[in-house]
Amino acid sequence: MTRTASDSVGIVTPQRLEFNAPLVLECGRTLPGFALMVETYGECNADASNAILICHALSGHHHAAGVHSESDTKPGWWDSCIGPGKAIDTREFFVVALNNIGGCHGSTGPVSPNPENDNRPYGPDFPLVTVRDWVKVQSLLADRLGIACWHAVVGGSLGGMQALQWAVDFPERLRHCVVIASTPKLSAQNIAFNEVARQSILSDPDFHEGRYLENDTAPRRGLILARMVGHITYLTDDAMKQKFGRDLKSGKFQYGYDVEFQVESYLRYQGEQFSRNFDANTYLIMTKALDYFDPAREFDESLREALARATCRFLVVSFSTDWRFPPERSQEIVDALIHNRQSVSYINVEADQGHDSFLFPIPRYVNTLRAFLGSAHGTGPTALSAPVARISGAINHEN
Amino acid sequence: MTRTASDSVGIVTPQRLEFNAPLVLECGRTLPGFALMVETYGECNADASNAILICHALSGHHHAAGVHSESDTKPGWWDSCIGPGKAIDTREFFVVALNNIGGCHGSTGPVSPNPENDNRPYGPDFPLVTVRDWVKVQSLLADRLGIACWHAVVGGSLGGMQALQWAVDFPERLRHCVVIASTPKLSAQNIAFNEVARQSILSDPDFHEGRYLENDTAPRRGLILARMVGHITYLTDDAMKQKFGRDLKSGKFQYGYDVEFQVESYLRYQGEQFSRNFDANTYLIMTKALDYFDPAREFDESLREALARATCRFLVVSFSTDWRFPPERSQEIVDALIHNRQSVSYINVEADQGHDSFLFPIPRYVNTLRAFLGSAHGTGPTALSAPVARISGAINHEN
Repeated sequence: MTRTASDSVGIVTPQRLEFNAPLVLECGRTLPGFALMVETYGECNADASNAILICHALSGHHHAAGVHSESDTKPGWWDSCIGPGKAIDTREFFVVALNNIGGCHGSTGPVSPNPENDNRPYGPDFPLVTVRDWVKVQSLLADRLGIACWHAVVGGSLGGMQALQWAVDFPERLRHCVVIASTPKLSAQNIAFNEVARQSILSDPDFHEGRYLENDTAPRRGLILARMVGHITYLTDDAMKQKFGRDLKSGKFQYGYDVEFQVESYLRYQGEQFSRNFDANTYLIMTKALDYFDPAREFDESLREALARATCRFLVVSFSTDWRFPPERSQEIVDALIHNRQSVSYINVEADQGHDSFLFPIPRYVNTLRAFLGSAHGTGPTALSAPVARISGAINHEN
Repeated sequence: MTRTASDSVGIVTPQRLEFNAPLVLECGRTLPGFALMVETYGECNADASNAILICHALSGHHHAAGVHSESDTKPGWWDSCIGPGKAIDTREFFVVALNNIGGCHGSTGPVSPNPENDNRPYGPDFPLVTVRDWVKVQSLLADRLGIACWHAVVGGSLGGMQALQWAVDFPERLRHCVVIASTPKLSAQNIAFNEVARQSILSDPDFHEGRYLENDTAPRRGLILARMVGHITYLTDDAMKQKFGRDLKSGKFQYGYDVEFQVESYLRYQGEQFSRNFDANTYLIMTKALDYFDPAREFDESLREALARATCRFLVVSFSTDWRFPPERSQEIVDALIHNRQSVSYINVEADQGHDSFLFPIPRYVNTLRAFLGSAHGTGPTALSAPVARISGAINHEN
C-alpha cells in the first residue's frame, strides 16, 4: 500500500460474515440465515466507542473506502470522506461498511443460492426487504462486532433513511445520526420514477419473471433504461448543461437514431456499464425499499411521534440543487426534531451536482460532517460508557 | 349537434388534403408527396385575414376542438380554448388545425404506404422531419387555403416551437405569434429524457428495427415506458402529491411488484392507453424534432439574430410549475425580442399542472390569449391588407 495516497485507508480486504439464525422480515417471510460482506477502516478502541456505521444507497455496497489491490484504480464509493485526516477520520474512528441483504455484492441476495430450492439462485424468490429489515440486520452486525452503541450512523439518500430508522428503532444504540440528501418518505413523483425503472426491468423479455440467471441471460436492456432514468434524476439540468450542453458527438446533425448529442452518449454509457455490474432483482428490491420507507407510518403518519423516541444528536444535510430529495424534504425531518426539542443541526449546502452532491467532498459539507462527528470520546451529550465486548477478530483491516 | 354545448364548435369532420409536389426536407431527403389531415372551425372571412393556425405538440393532431359525432364524448385536445366565445373565438376567427407529417393520425407518416417500396408502411424509412419542415408544410397548407397571412400562429410546447419558427421563416405571413410553455431549444436534461424514451422503444424486441407493422406487432412495452417517463415530466411533484400522495391501491403493503401505490396504477394506465393509440416511429420522430429545434443555430447561436427578422407581435406564456420548459426558457425568448425592440407581451401564469398547464383554461392565461388575439381586423400594428385568394371549398366545418 505504499503507493496509495497518505489520506487513503490503503488496501482493504472485505470479509464475509455468516449469520445462521433465521431472520424474520417485515414482509412476514423468514430468511433461514444470511451472510454480509463487510469492510472496516481504522481501529476499534477498547470500549468500542469509536465505531461509525456507513449505510449505502441504491447502488452502493461494503466497499466504501480504499482500494482492493495495489493496481486497483477505483477507490470505494465514499473514499472522498473516509480516510486518515478526512471528514470521517480513520485515525480516530473505526468505520464499518456493509453490503445490505438483497444486494448483489456478496451479501445474501437474489443472486445467492437459495437453500430451500436446491441452492439455485433466489432470483424473484428473494423477499422484498425494507429499510427496517436492513437496520435490524445492521444491529446484528453490531452485536457480532461487539459494538453496543455506534458513535454515529451515517448515510446519504437511501443510506440516510437507514440512519434515520436506526434512531427510531434502536435509540440507545447510536449517539450521532447523520442523514444526508434524504427524505422522511418518497413523494409520488419519486415513486413514479422508481416505477418506470421497475417496469423497464419487468417488461424486458430477458427478465424471465426474475429467473434470468437460470436462463443464462439478464434483462440488460431493462437495467440500462432503469439506470438512465435514475441517472437523470441524480443530476441537475444545470449540471448537465455545464457538462454537455447541446454539444454534438460528430459536429453536425446525423438525422438518425445513433448518438447525436454528447448527453445521449454519456447516458447510454452509464446505463451499459451499470447493467454489466448490477443485478436486476436487486435493483427492483432497492427501489421498493425506497418506496416503502416511511417511519411515520406506524405513528399515525406523525414523523414527530416516530422521532420522539430518538435520543441521539442529529445532523441533517441537504443540497441546494437536489431535486430528487430537495431541501424541503430534509427540513421536514428538521422541523419534527425541533418540535420535539431534540438536538439537530441542519445545513443546506450550495452545490451544483444535484442529488449526487453527497458523494463529493464539498468543503462546507465535509467540514460540517467532521465537526459534528467530533472526536471519539466526550463529544456527545449522551456519551455512554456502555459495557462492550471486545471486538471480534473476524474483521481486520488490510489482512 | 344540438346536444353539444353552446360554446363548442360542435360536430366536425376532418379533411384529407393531398399535396403532390415533392417536398425537400431539412435532412436532405425528399418526400414524393404527402397528405395532411386538417380540421377547421369558424368561417374564413372574405380577405382571409381572420385565420389562426393551431400547431400541435408531441402527441397532438388535427382534432383540436369539437367532437366527431353526437355520441363522441371526447372533444378535441384544445377544446377548452377553441370555440364560440372561447379564448380563440370561432365566431371571430377561422381556426385551422392539422396533423403534422410524420404523425400517426392520418397525415403522411411512418404508418402511411411508401410509394417507393411497394406501398408497404414507411416505418423506419420515413425521414426525420424537423420543426422547420413542419412550418414549410404549413405554409403550403396556407397557400392551399388561400391564406396569405395568418392572423396568428399559436402553439404550446412543441407547437410553440412551430409558432416561433414561423416568425423566423415567414415573417411576412403572420401578424401574431403565440408561444406557450415552450423553449428556444431543448436543454441537455430535456434531450436526456427524450433519449430514455427513444431507447425504451428502440430496445423493445418487438420494434423489429422499426418494421413492426410488417411483422404484425408493435413495441408496446417500449411505448408504454416512453409515455410513463414523459408523463412524469409533464406533471409536477406537487400535482402528483395532490392527486395521489402515497395512497395505496389496496390499503396495505403487498410486498410484491403488482401496483402498490395509486400513482403506479395511474402511470401504467396512461402508458397502456397511449400505446394502443400511438405509433412508435412517430414517437421517435417527434422526440427528434424536439431535440433538433434550435432556430439560433443558423445565426451563430444568437437567438436575437434569428428573431430579428420577425415582424409580428409576440405573446409568450410560461407556467410557474412547468419544469420541463420552465419560465426561464420562455424568458430567453422574451429577452431576445426586447433586445431587438420587437413587440412582445409575456406572462408567467401561476398554475399547478406543470407543463400540462397549457391545456387547461386557466383564467389569466386564456383571458390574456383572448385579449392578445384581439378581433380579426385592425388590432395588429402590421395589419396587412394582403391580396388573398378565396378560400378553397375543400375545408368545411361540420360537413
